Amino acid sequence: MKKITLQIHCKDQSGIIASVTKFIADHSGNIVYIDQHVDREQNIFFMRIESEFDSLSMDKFTSNFKHVLVDKFHMKWRIYDAEEQPKMAIFVSKYDHCLYDILGRYSSGELHCEIPFIISNHKDLQPIADNFNIPFYHIPVSKTTKAQAEAKQLKLLQHHNVDFIVLARYMQIVSTKLIERYQNKIINIHHSFLPAFVGAKPYHSALKRGVKIIGATSHYITEELDAGPIIEQDVARVSHTYSIKDLITKGRDLEKIVLATAIKHHINRKVMVYNNKTVIFY
Amino acid sequence: MKKITLQIHCKDQSGIIASVTKFIADHSGNIVYIDQHVDREQNIFFMRIESEFDSLSMDKFTSNFKHVLVDKFHMKWRIYDAEEQPKMAIFVSKYDHCLYDILGRYSSGELHCEIPFIISNHKDLQPIADNFNIPFYHIPVSKTTKAQAEAKQLKLLQHHNVDFIVLARYMQIVSTKLIERYQNKIINIHHSFLPAFVGAKPYHSALKRGVKIIGATSHYITEELDAGPIIEQDVARVSHTYSIKDLITKGRDLEKIVLATAIKHHINRKVMVYNNKTVIFY
Amino acid sequence: MKKITLQIHCKDQSGIIASVTKFIADHSGNIVYIDQHVDREQNIFFMRIESEFDSLSMDKFTSNFKHVLVDKFHMKWRIYDAEEQPKMAIFVSKYDHCLYDILGRYSSGELHCEIPFIISNHKDLQPIADNFNIPFYHIPVSKTTKAQAEAKQLKLLQHHNVDFIVLARYMQIVSTKLIERYQNKIINIHHSFLPAFVGAKPYHSALKRGVKIIGATSHYITEELDAGPIIEQDVARVSHTYSIKDLITKGRDLEKIVLATAIKHHINRKVMVYNNKTVIFY
Amino acid sequence: MKKITLQIHCKDQSGIIASVTKFIADHSGNIVYIDQHVDREQNIFFMRIESEFDSLSMDKFTSNFKHVLVDKFHMKWRIYDAEEQPKMAIFVSKYDHCLYDILGRYSSGELHCEIPFIISNHKDLQPIADNFNIPFYHIPVSKTTKAQAEAKQLKLLQHHNVDFIVLARYMQIVSTKLIERYQNKIINIHHSFLPAFVGAKPYHSALKRGVKIIGATSHYITEELDAGPIIEQDVARVSHTYSIKDLITKGRDLEKIVLATAIKHHINRKVMVYNNKTVIFY
Repeated sequence: MKKITLQIHCKDQSGIIASVTKFIADHSGNIVYIDQHVDREQNIFFMRIESEFDSLSMDKFTSNFKHVLVDKFHMKWRIYDAEEQPKMAIFVSKYDHCLYDILGRYSSGELHCEIPFIISNHKDLQPIADNFNIPFYHIPVSKTTKAQAEAKQLKLLQHHNVDFIVLARYMQIVSTKLIERYQNKIINIHHSFLPAFVGAKPYHSALKRGVKIIGATSHYITEELDAGPIIEQDVARVSHTYSIKDLITKGRDLEKIVLATAIKHHINRKVMVYNNKTVIFY
Repeated sequence: MKKITLQIHCKDQSGIIASVTKFIADHSGNIVYIDQHVDREQNIFFMRIESEFDSLSMDKFTSNFKHVLVDKFHMKWRIYDAEEQPKMAIFVSKYDHCLYDILGRYSSGELHCEIPFIISNHKDLQPIADNFNIPFYHIPVSKTTKAQAEAKQLKLLQHHNVDFIVLARYMQIVSTKLIERYQNKIINIHHSFLPAFVGAKPYHSALKRGVKIIGATSHYITEELDAGPIIEQDVARVSHTYSIKDLITKGRDLEKIVLATAIKHHINRKVMVYNNKTVIFY
Repeated sequence: MKKITLQIHCKDQSGIIASVTKFIADHSGNIVYIDQHVDREQNIFFMRIESEFDSLSMDKFTSNFKHVLVDKFHMKWRIYDAEEQPKMAIFVSKYDHCLYDILGRYSSGELHCEIPFIISNHKDLQPIADNFNIPFYHIPVSKTTKAQAEAKQLKLLQHHNVDFIVLARYMQIVSTKLIERYQNKIINIHHSFLPAFVGAKPYHSALKRGVKIIGATSHYITEELDAGPIIEQDVARVSHTYSIKDLITKGRDLEKIVLATAIKHHINRKVMVYNNKTVIFY
Repeated sequence: MKKITLQIHCKDQSGIIASVTKFIADHSGNIVYIDQHVDREQNIFFMRIESEFDSLSMDKFTSNFKHVLVDKFHMKWRIYDAEEQPKMAIFVSKYDHCLYDILGRYSSGELHCEIPFIISNHKDLQPIADNFNIPFYHIPVSKTTKAQAEAKQLKLLQHHNVDFIVLARYMQIVSTKLIERYQNKIINIHHSFLPAFVGAKPYHSALKRGVKIIGATSHYITEELDAGPIIEQDVARVSHTYSIKDLITKGRDLEKIVLATAIKHHINRKVMVYNNKTVIFY
């Protein structure tokens, strides 16, 4: 049994769904999930299909698909083998809560991915990596060493064929080169309900503004700070009794869950990105 | 332009989606929404499709559909003309908050339905019906008059070709006859998070049990009390400071929103019922 | 039986709570609610006390309180007779959902206030005011008539001894003069999770940014647009499937509940304002 | 500087608050937190006070308090030295998510307690305990060894002067003897929104009933199964697409947060229990 996931997007046109589903049926596939979305303003069509085949030559299916459908509808598309686990690199600094959360989920089988390594600009979290038996690379970053540090990061990422990167409270600006190489493949967790409180110290800003609800936002990294496509957000109620320390503690729980949810959406190929926004097929 | 909504369910089989989408394409239809669900345990397939046609003979489409697909896949199915607004009767007693909420939404164009009349076993809410220009029938119910009251209700419902009934805090047990006639078409709002606190006085039970969260549940009426298929639920946080009056006030907001959401799902033909549960295609 | 509510704030000092509670006991009062808060950064003390007296001369209590406590602790304070219902003026434009919601709660006894009148710059909502038997004044506002319109508003507000104003989706900038007269007494509902999406058309901005959660914020009006002290916020989850119309519809429910909650906090004298923030004693 | 927390409850009477706050002022204490609650139906008064003293003899304060106040008002009361960290024993079986969560929070300094040991009826989680350097005792429980196992548990608990016990998904019924010794001091996490789905396999029951929201409940253990005083609850939205595995995964996040919140309330002496309910002073 072979299971594949298809992501398609193109200009909205008549007959796409019928053509694609017929194509799968013609290849003796059984559709187990289909969802689609049309952005009416932009006139763009999105579809996500999971289908099962008793036996399937991925190469043949792929070349047929290209021949029969992609050219006809001018599709942008991705095909994934559902058994293939993507490789996820984790970048951290000193905060441990998101790392603990991710590794806990990973070891309980909740995340269908491989974690080839963890990179950090500090040594503090090495013991956690050791406990979970994940290789840990300490790559310090300073103004003068920034370029070399990035080169080292890139080398590791490429050597391990990393598919996507998770910034689990990594306290460094990611370089343009990395962003370009891993477009819509670097997931960040920002500790506010974006676009409120862009930038550093959002909990301090939240306290100052006197909000009654705080949030966390997971998004893909783009060139513009904290402005990339939002994958997931969640919020929690607070009050005037919350000190800055209370906000940070409460926020940690949000950060963990929001980041974990975004990672799962990405791993399960549920996210499509366009126009700096995401379509997420639950 | 003609727009239709199809609801289908049957045993899960290969090729259903391809066959149905091809059928629509063959009739020059454009699918604007498709969602499907498979209950893996029960092996049942559910699908909901909205499609648009430049022109369409409903009769011909329906008979073709039956001929080509229904028999082949042993489908249960429903087809709806999207322009046709269902007729919704409202039953109330003395509480006004759900009625105000429904009629407010109705007059702002949020509910795509007709409201031919309101029935009540009390006269109290007649002025509200008058304000919104909806016919109001006062049909008192007592032990001795229950049968006659139901006969009157049924006559009104049939005379106006009512499609579904909303019990907006109607404080009477609905008769078996009505339930049978309007199977999965009588929407109730229960003021608790079912299955917690079945029966009368759920807020009193919630207070006694000391719960930290209260809820409301909208469900289709079945023979067994408060046990029908759940359409929508929502909750709100409470604390030890809440008196019974506070719980009731807080609960009213839940009841309004949960009932309104359930009504909208039903009107927009998003709900399918099986095994005393609902599939809701958002 | 006389019931009063005291709000106190001053520099944090030792012995305030003991002094105030002793003062009330000395006047044969029974405290039924006490809550306090200290802003540790600013070193400010806040307290709210409800107490009951078999009989009480408000004048004598007030002058004693001033003599014994206010001067000693350099307090800012307010005393309220719990039976006295504040007078609330409502300003609206064309949107009816918040008005329906407020008047529905008012007529079911949920709001302990008087509503002497509704002011609008349009005639559209007059029938709703009529249905609920509340005087409605149509005061059109245009660039050239703005000054006269405000003069009329102020005259009405003063003539009726209005205590506070609710802007129930009133689509006009309130004048500086009004803001100064009714400092921390003009409650607005903003249709976003402030400080995200300040200004007009927040739902359009939310759609463009691709947020996964929308919000509503009720705050006191200050000179700076959408920047006044936040009283209440709430949020709802949305997805890529939401059109601008869907966001607006979903947001309406938030606006209603958030505004109603803020109004109730204000009426029940639960809000204290300082540093452009609120302390809310639940 | 000495900081203490007082919990008081007694029949509601005039003058309690004034008397207690005066007592603290007379001992040169500064109140930094005060909250109170009256159960109007039962006529019971509850109060929680935190106060600071430049210097304080706990013995003298305690004996004075007893002499001056306890007898006069027939109080039940507890006094806590805020610097004293309670000792928390953790009981687990095979599920690791709650244990990871608790130990992660513990090592980041979020929980102001000591953890003298972990007890389990299985060996599976020993490595986690080792990673965090917490002693781990494997005490298997079978029908025939139940009594001996409990004796071993009790011996450990007493030897270490354990203050309270957390059942972090411990899959055994706790004995009556333990419950009596640690009344309102054994915190359990139940994986449903109690009182819905009492007993085993609540996620299976939730799936069968077709609920749209699942929950988790943390409560003190009493003789009656899943019926003890509720400390904290939380919920998450689900849909027809959730398999039993999805519900369990989603539920794990609820269990972790609800249990952690309950533990923090208990550690910070914020919980008072009466009538099988809790008063929680936030």
